[in-house]
Amino acid sequence: MSENPLFISVDAMGGDYSPRIVVEGLAIATKQNPDIRFLVYGDLERISAEFKKFPDLKNTCEIRHASEMVSNDDKPSQVIRNRNTSMYMAIDAVKRGEAQAVVSAGNTGALMAISKMLLKTIHKIHRPAIVTIMPHRYGKYVMLDLGANAECTSVNLAEFAVMGNVLAKKALHIEKPRVALLNIGSEEMKGREEIRHALQMLKEASSDLNLDFIGYIEPHDIPFGKADVIVADGFTGNVALKSIEGTAKFAAAMLKDSIKKTPISWLGLPFLYLAIKKIKKTMNPKQYNGAMFVGLNGLSVKSHGGADGFSFSVALNNAAMLVRQDFVSTIRAELEDIDLDEISQDMFYDVM
Amino acid sequence: MSENPLFISVDAMGGDYSPRIVVEGLAIATKQNPDIRFLVYGDLERISAEFKKFPDLKNTCEIRHASEMVSNDDKPSQVIRNRNTSMYMAIDAVKRGEAQAVVSAGNTGALMAISKMLLKTIHKIHRPAIVTIMPHRYGKYVMLDLGANAECTSVNLAEFAVMGNVLAKKALHIEKPRVALLNIGSEEMKGREEIRHALQMLKEASSDLNLDFIGYIEPHDIPFGKADVIVADGFTGNVALKSIEGTAKFAAAMLKDSIKKTPISWLGLPFLYLAIKKIKKTMNPKQYNGAMFVGLNGLSVKSHGGADGFSFSVALNNAAMLVRQDFVSTIRAELEDIDLDEISQDMFYDVM
Repeated sequence: MSENPLFISVDAMGGDYSPRIVVEGLAIATKQNPDIRFLVYGDLERISAEFKKFPDLKNTCEIRHASEMVSNDDKPSQVIRNRNTSMYMAIDAVKRGEAQAVVSAGNTGALMAISKMLLKTIHKIHRPAIVTIMPHRYGKYVMLDLGANAECTSVNLAEFAVMGNVLAKKALHIEKPRVALLNIGSEEMKGREEIRHALQMLKEASSDLNLDFIGYIEPHDIPFGKADVIVADGFTGNVALKSIEGTAKFAAAMLKDSIKKTPISWLGLPFLYLAIKKIKKTMNPKQYNGAMFVGLNGLSVKSHGGADGFSFSVALNNAAMLVRQDFVSTIRAELEDIDLDEISQDMFYDVM
Repeated sequence: MSENPLFISVDAMGGDYSPRIVVEGLAIATKQNPDIRFLVYGDLERISAEFKKFPDLKNTCEIRHASEMVSNDDKPSQVIRNRNTSMYMAIDAVKRGEAQAVVSAGNTGALMAISKMLLKTIHKIHRPAIVTIMPHRYGKYVMLDLGANAECTSVNLAEFAVMGNVLAKKALHIEKPRVALLNIGSEEMKGREEIRHALQMLKEASSDLNLDFIGYIEPHDIPFGKADVIVADGFTGNVALKSIEGTAKFAAAMLKDSIKKTPISWLGLPFLYLAIKKIKKTMNPKQYNGAMFVGLNGLSVKSHGGADGFSFSVALNNAAMLVRQDFVSTIRAELEDIDLDEISQDMFYDVM
């Protein structure tokens, strides 16, 4: 372990199978991230029982008792007032500077509400966004916002572009990510007003922002790797994400259905085993677990509620990778010399 | 042929391979729809040359010369002023009552603009919508709006629900279509304001409108047949449609890529021939050609610009099916005894 370890706080009580899967995830992630320590919040007794299965964990994890937990039915307005839940305490550790990121498989709305309240947005960022990593035909891309903001201004969209760009550099190791705005046509006049306005802003500011801004992308081009960063408002991004996920499942189901109904095809299946295994590996949703809540002073990562141990470790790994590369400070630095509000206002006066 | 044939007007000059593919499509569609006659607008000489390949066509089609045509680069503002294009004349035939529907593979924006101007919206419908038929795991569904209106009010969405319901009955032969609003969550408070408002309106008016309204649907549930009619604003519907189309292509490409790279799998392919053929048949995009522009006094159908003859015949068949069942009058009748504006206003006062 390095001299000055980085810390990630973990809500051990969120998700359907906690704290078991959280501890299983820690057992994997601690091996892959020896430079990181983990602060594990939740029921001391239950977590300790799970820790017994992985004796090494005690070297890199510290269990901190939380007497309560956030349930999936709790309203954000309630949870922000209860400081005794494992989720609240884990986020508070980031606020107090004890940890640089928090990971939870619990209630998404609650995680967003407490994170926003305690961590606050980065200077010059108006709205945090949810972002995730997805596979395309030739690699991976990031898309944001996926649902934190149902409606956005052009300034919000431009900020998402900046944050997505940093994320693609840090998490996907792409030197010069191609950043695109999601729209329903490639012509400049198409789509909603805020998107057209964001296009103008990003064209104007892309060199100051150090962005390789490539303009609009249409949804059908996303899976073919036409951009590395897809920027949308939270409503549109969520619709695109869920349409993509649903259709991928649909395609797999159609293949299964059709093979099931065609007995002769069963003879071919053994030969296809390897090819199908490869696809499953590339597309495995477990591998893409961990929606990141970015734009706050500290990173907040949401694991899928139904995650298993491996899948939870992916969320922990994502958090570790970004913490290690000082993701939050990089965003702050990118915005230091630019004022997107001012650019937006100047453009507004230009057209009057 | 029946005593009083129905008429469909056709823009023979639209699309990438016109008038050839239009005439090939007519050759197929006339056989399948002996009760329909076609008014074919465009360059008399070129169309006549194509007609020579299908001598029977002259019994059911009448060629009407148009000296000009709309190109893909023409702006809607220009095309609405030129009465000599094949597209304008074909739509005008519907306006004058000579035909009940028009089919074109030409410039979408132009078709929408001329159709709106000449045919006008049905009484009580504020905005026309683009709708298409799509496959899901267990059958088919209709989705609208797919791009005619980037932003919509709750009243627009409620009208789309009514039109989609009639379309699912007439085109998919579903007795009681399940109608759903596309949203990013199933909770009542999620999503954009106009969608939440439309939910309340449709709940209140569903019995008067004779709708089986099932509330919200999330995009990932669309391909699994959870609803027969999906209602969205044109921006969101277009994003969902293109995400679905892109991901379906992506899944097929991933399967191909993976098989290509795994030589042993080639041995299994002959056995899978039939199973893959079945999927291709169900999913074949040619089979779903024909976006319908509904809500006007007359039906306007847009074929894909790159359509082949078979694919164009599908668009003609869709038009024929809806004309035969008096689609436009049915929408008019459904709205006769209800005032959606009034319902919306009442609800607005209720919450004040």
